[in-house]
Amino acid sequence: MNAFGLAAEAPDIALGVDLGGTRVRAALVTAGGRVLRRAEERTEALGGPARILSQIEDLAGRLIDGTRTPCLKGIGVSLPGPIDTVAGVAMEIPTLPGFAGVPLKAELERRFAFPVRLENDGIAAAIGEWRFGAGRGLENLVYVTVSTGLGGGVIADGRVLRGRMGMAGHIGHMAFVPNGLPCPCGNRGCFEAYGSGTAFARRAQTAARRHGKSLLGGHGARIDSRSVFAAARNGDPLAGRLVDEEAEILGRGFVSLLHVFSPDILIMGGGLSHEFSRLLPGIQRYIARRAMPAFREVKLVRAALGQNSGLIGAAALALPEPLRPE
Amino acid sequence: MNAFGLAAEAPDIALGVDLGGTRVRAALVTAGGRVLRRAEERTEALGGPARILSQIEDLAGRLIDGTRTPCLKGIGVSLPGPIDTVAGVAMEIPTLPGFAGVPLKAELERRFAFPVRLENDGIAAAIGEWRFGAGRGLENLVYVTVSTGLGGGVIADGRVLRGRMGMAGHIGHMAFVPNGLPCPCGNRGCFEAYGSGTAFARRAQTAARRHGKSLLGGHGARIDSRSVFAAARNGDPLAGRLVDEEAEILGRGFVSLLHVFSPDILIMGGGLSHEFSRLLPGIQRYIARRAMPAFREVKLVRAALGQNSGLIGAAALALPEPLRPE
Repeated sequence: MNAFGLAAEAPDIALGVDLGGTRVRAALVTAGGRVLRRAEERTEALGGPARILSQIEDLAGRLIDGTRTPCLKGIGVSLPGPIDTVAGVAMEIPTLPGFAGVPLKAELERRFAFPVRLENDGIAAAIGEWRFGAGRGLENLVYVTVSTGLGGGVIADGRVLRGRMGMAGHIGHMAFVPNGLPCPCGNRGCFEAYGSGTAFARRAQTAARRHGKSLLGGHGARIDSRSVFAAARNGDPLAGRLVDEEAEILGRGFVSLLHVFSPDILIMGGGLSHEFSRLLPGIQRYIARRAMPAFREVKLVRAALGQNSGLIGAAALALPEPLRPE
Repeated sequence: MNAFGLAAEAPDIALGVDLGGTRVRAALVTAGGRVLRRAEERTEALGGPARILSQIEDLAGRLIDGTRTPCLKGIGVSLPGPIDTVAGVAMEIPTLPGFAGVPLKAELERRFAFPVRLENDGIAAAIGEWRFGAGRGLENLVYVTVSTGLGGGVIADGRVLRGRMGMAGHIGHMAFVPNGLPCPCGNRGCFEAYGSGTAFARRAQTAARRHGKSLLGGHGARIDSRSVFAAARNGDPLAGRLVDEEAEILGRGFVSLLHVFSPDILIMGGGLSHEFSRLLPGIQRYIARRAMPAFREVKLVRAALGQNSGLIGAAALALPEPLRPE
């Protein structure tokens, strides 16, 4: 038995790193997708790339040191924003100032003795769900994360959809409403500007100011996604309507994704997926009414790996591919 | 020299068929993408599948008979609507009533001694442009046809994007305007309902009724896409504004496509691409303002094969794949 309580023959292991605007997380993951050890801390975004690289080094060191990992295959890093995954350079990360143009892959490979691969966070999470989660064994899937932002990744015809410079799958930035609300990307009227958890909470705050009588407002209470769902569960009609509206918005975006990618399954992750069962009927109702008939039967499911989809998917980048029938 | 004026060693040849709602066309195409012979007639849509199958048989017979084609490799058929390209069955073709569920591949293989492959018309045209047209040698491209309808096909990471049942790439049916205009697909507010040539002509007709003074209207003249572009060229301000609006609509849809697929190039075909040079500056202006910076430099070009993209792409399905470096 080794340090992980595993049998003598050690499995392949990879280190996954999920670098987000608020948290940086790392985990040792087996070739079977199991998280062996995990560590995280607050992203010191203001410290700039040098400080964040040290954070990754520290987290990784903590996980690796003192464990016997002769089979550590490499490091996969998931991070937001367009990334040139071929060159290993982040293009532009709104939540991590100073990262544009930093040769992250090369910098990490200088610090570690392992090969490093970068992946957009939406694509990494899609890979995690495909290899080890709700999309196992399927050829076509769309993963959508609905959280502070709205992003995702796509598996098509049994392969990860990467596109030019690995930048495919920016599904939160489909045009959604002409000259609509401003989006964090700088454009207006994107799917993200309406469907994200941030957009949902903002609509709730506005509605609560207007309707003093609702459970939602009137007492200066802080309104976030969670509190709206709680109020809806307690029978508050305004909260119920807001949730139904969010389901319809997601349904409308998901119809686009069905038509564009024709997946076998659509997987929803991110913060709002905690309320998946509440949102699902409204999303399905929209799809049943608005998708072309041949696309209506596509299954919608919740991410199986929860907040670890990206971390496990990042690690999977450094793990050997499972054998697949041609 | 043989019947085609080619040197003694005959090249691989395939038959491409483009089955549309108004025309059915067929061509013999070389492995180099050259059209050797071509025939077409009006689609007898009201005759139902049996009549249309006979039309394809007749056209093919006319092209094949009397020519020495010992190397005819097979037949590729491009047709509209969702098609189960694996089973070779059309799912639903609004413009060809009675075709849903017809085992087209099996029926054609009964009539010909060659293997038959079906492909969605948008995907077939994308393949044509990729193999022999504006996208030659590229790994990632989006082909958009703007015509009576609005459709397309995608090549991603050096492979045709097919998705579940070969139905990926229905890009005309992305959500575009909430509760917007009715779309031929049965939904409302799709990209096609705003961007297609039909939608453009309809906006022009409405505008002409309102502004009697424009060159466009006032004389009961028939207004179609062509006449609006002609009026714009002659300095008619209303026509100019309508064209600018169409460019902006296309730009908005194209921004979605850039973000979602991250192509190396976006290729525009279909009837409206005859006015590509007039539309391009407006489309580019929109993209420069609204796409995320990393996506702005993607090239926009006009289809190189014109109305033959689909016919040549269909034939390419039956031709051996060119060797590509891994």
